[in-house]
Amino acid sequence: MFDSQRSPCPIASSLDLIGDRWTLVLLRDMMLGKTTYSELLDSPECITTSVLAERLERMQKHGLIERQQYQDRPRRFRYLLTAKGRDLLPVAQALCRWGNRHLDDTWIPPERFMSANPADLPLAARD
Amino acid sequence: MFDSQRSPCPIASSLDLIGDRWTLVLLRDMMLGKTTYSELLDSPECITTSVLAERLERMQKHGLIERQQYQDRPRRFRYLLTAKGRDLLPVAQALCRWGNRHLDDTWIPPERFMSANPADLPLAARD
Repeated sequence: MFDSQRSPCPIASSLDLIGDRWTLVLLRDMMLGKTTYSELLDSPECITTSVLAERLERMQKHGLIERQQYQDRPRRFRYLLTAKGRDLLPVAQALCRWGNRHLDDTWIPPERFMSANPADLPLAARD
Repeated sequence: MFDSQRSPCPIASSLDLIGDRWTLVLLRDMMLGKTTYSELLDSPECITTSVLAERLERMQKHGLIERQQYQDRPRRFRYLLTAKGRDLLPVAQALCRWGNRHLDDTWIPPERFMSANPADLPLAARD
């Protein structure tokens, strides 16, 4: 059992880590290839800097992402998916299918996202 | 667009409705056959009455469940999944697979849950 785990149910336990409105939105962007704080800040959902910073810290703490320094002066970091984070792709895909079926006016995700396997991630844009 | 929808992304839009720690836990119990307030209150996650009442109201508002009166004096209600609520089964199953794979000491869900289709729901216990 980890801190804040309510029961051994795998649904409840998963939601103890990712049951909020932002974590899977950030993982979506990282699955699609975003890695830096400023890239993650720039999304149509208009996440605030304080929520972004708090979620990135939480996601690191729970082993969903890793922070890697890629520049020294000034120090800059990028955020990379771990295998544990990548393996949430089927959850994200299931949410897409449900949203497209039941919620009006939702975007159809790119086929490369819907047909990907966790091992394919991140998916760089192909324009 | 509905109230509180942040973007047309189907992941973000789905999380606007079910992105919290309780909604899918309650849907799990209803998928497994629970229908009444007292049955839903009785779970290993120890939901409080105020959170339960608030979530049931929210889930009705978003069309995931319906409330049906089944007794007159005293008035008693049961809560039933709609097609929109039932169709979250693949999300719940994907969370189970991820939780079982990445979170220690999580229960293995009953096979009848993992192999079910939304049309099979609710699943009465077969003991």
